[in-house]
Amino acid sequence: MKLTLAEPRLLKEPVSILSDLVNDVSFKVDNEKLEIVATDPANVVMVVFKLLSSAFIEYEVGSSEVISISLDNLNQILRRLKGNDTLSLELDKEKNKLKINMSGDSSRTFNLNLIELEDKDQNIPELSFKSKVVTNSKMIEDAIEDVGIVAESVSLGLDKEKMMIRGEGNLSNAHVELNKNEDTEIETENEIISKYSIEYLKKLIRGGKLSDKVVLEWADDYPLRLEYNVIDKLALSFILAPRVSDE
Amino acid sequence: MKLTLAEPRLLKEPVSILSDLVNDVSFKVDNEKLEIVATDPANVVMVVFKLLSSAFIEYEVGSSEVISISLDNLNQILRRLKGNDTLSLELDKEKNKLKINMSGDSSRTFNLNLIELEDKDQNIPELSFKSKVVTNSKMIEDAIEDVGIVAESVSLGLDKEKMMIRGEGNLSNAHVELNKNEDTEIETENEIISKYSIEYLKKLIRGGKLSDKVVLEWADDYPLRLEYNVIDKLALSFILAPRVSDE
Amino acid sequence: MKLTLAEPRLLKEPVSILSDLVNDVSFKVDNEKLEIVATDPANVVMVVFKLLSSAFIEYEVGSSEVISISLDNLNQILRRLKGNDTLSLELDKEKNKLKINMSGDSSRTFNLNLIELEDKDQNIPELSFKSKVVTNSKMIEDAIEDVGIVAESVSLGLDKEKMMIRGEGNLSNAHVELNKNEDTEIETENEIISKYSIEYLKKLIRGGKLSDKVVLEWADDYPLRLEYNVIDKLALSFILAPRVSDE
Repeated sequence: MKLTLAEPRLLKEPVSILSDLVNDVSFKVDNEKLEIVATDPANVVMVVFKLLSSAFIEYEVGSSEVISISLDNLNQILRRLKGNDTLSLELDKEKNKLKINMSGDSSRTFNLNLIELEDKDQNIPELSFKSKVVTNSKMIEDAIEDVGIVAESVSLGLDKEKMMIRGEGNLSNAHVELNKNEDTEIETENEIISKYSIEYLKKLIRGGKLSDKVVLEWADDYPLRLEYNVIDKLALSFILAPRVSDE
Repeated sequence: MKLTLAEPRLLKEPVSILSDLVNDVSFKVDNEKLEIVATDPANVVMVVFKLLSSAFIEYEVGSSEVISISLDNLNQILRRLKGNDTLSLELDKEKNKLKINMSGDSSRTFNLNLIELEDKDQNIPELSFKSKVVTNSKMIEDAIEDVGIVAESVSLGLDKEKMMIRGEGNLSNAHVELNKNEDTEIETENEIISKYSIEYLKKLIRGGKLSDKVVLEWADDYPLRLEYNVIDKLALSFILAPRVSDE
Repeated sequence: MKLTLAEPRLLKEPVSILSDLVNDVSFKVDNEKLEIVATDPANVVMVVFKLLSSAFIEYEVGSSEVISISLDNLNQILRRLKGNDTLSLELDKEKNKLKINMSGDSSRTFNLNLIELEDKDQNIPELSFKSKVVTNSKMIEDAIEDVGIVAESVSLGLDKEKMMIRGEGNLSNAHVELNKNEDTEIETENEIISKYSIEYLKKLIRGGKLSDKVVLEWADDYPLRLEYNVIDKLALSFILAPRVSDE
């Protein structure tokens, strides 16, 4: 297996975001994509990350491979990438290592030990949503940060005209409204509202580094699905459990 | 009561500076101005902040109001202001809250609980000075920071030709001289000298963010008055107690 | 003694680097240069710093002088230098102080106490090297930082065609190769390899702030000599002990 990326940030940014949520992960690599499906230790959020073969300038995969590594170590290594580097990943089965090469002004190679990871097949839950918002990822990021000033959980509300982001703290409350307009597409049949952890959301909205647009889907007291896409290259999605209402 | 500011930094910067000195404060709002008069818990510095009605684009005040809040909470909220936001403050007497709205690319609203604060009328002491320096606020800031490298208190000296800023530490001493010139106006009858806490001065000189000019007035072993002005908009002044000489 | 520098960074940067390695030092000043020779408390690295008289715009030295000071205090003072300042150093023997003046927009003076320091003559060891690399200091800095991600010591290897920088950690290893080319001159008779502490190297490579080029000389299990030069102005060199192989 040998994979080469001309835009290493397509791997670097997702790994940085994921390393804040999970420790050890398995990459599954087949002819179409490199994929990570993982759940955080507290079982609050599931991450599904796909990097499509079309994102690579070199994509040689014999059979499907499962590569288990420490995400924290991989993240530390990928942080050493410089602006004009290309990144290649090569599996060295004999030595049980992942060979990571960065080439730019100089050539640097890291060999990361593979680890044993129990192969618990992560089943992505089947969710059905009747409400969907597509909006500017920076605006969602700001709204979550705003509400984070006063509260620990956020209520996401939606009606046909606007999305409402609210938080209630001991000393103050905050709310932000995003109206339906050219930046914000809204589809919903009913008014919905549900509560989520701000601590987690702050980690997930870092996906805005990958894409200007974010897709949000949710329902009353139901998981939130958050998705960032780079067309023909990657999809990073999160499924976040709701918080119970009596907090 | 409803007040709207097109330049929110006129409130944001003073609140940031004040929140480093005092915790809870009362805003007094009448037809002419919004005013805070407060003393730090150690009684070393008094702050007088006035934001004139002419600084606002909307200024509706029925009768005089006293609004008591946690300055720390207000500061955290105002830090969320973005470059092109307008800021409005509205008093919701029924809910006992101050409604703070930021409008720019999106509209965000914070409702901050009012608090109970004993109404101890702060009497601004009557001080009479015979010496005055008007100079560049950045130069004063640098001089205080320079002296802060070696000492914990600073002596401010003045004669007809120059202002002297000196500090004495265990291992070294430092002094900076500001000569009378186009940047530095000096008025004094006698030579004067007095000592002040550098720790406090470092907090007060942050007023340089509001105005390029600072006015300093002091006398021998007498309080220092430091003032920053934005004409027709705001005045931020501090009265700092001297340090006793035998330190 | 009075010395004036128009480019104060020629003193500021070396003092900043040295203050991270040694505490108290003696400057020796004679007609040709200002010099510091010092060893870190653990005896792992020796520093030799020379600032030539030709680097100064004013250089008055009566007889040779030895000036002992706390490097940490000097560093704190020099950090207050601003972009367009000139820096002058004057010895006040009566008061037993070093007078440090910074002149730019304003004039600031620091008087730093001299200290007593036992005059242990530092003998610079005579080393003989048969291998030498002259390369880009930024590339060496990056390589050391890269290897520092995975390991605590680094092996520096050299053959006629390339320099190899390698580190071995518990979970991964890293290596960087610098090939002989227009950026990298290599002279060696044999293949050599030796191990050094990354913790120390990270401090020494900060010398790259002074010069784009670094000279490295070493041999098998032998000290490493690292040198940064600014022609006709300064030379900053380090002699770093090797690490024993069984770590």
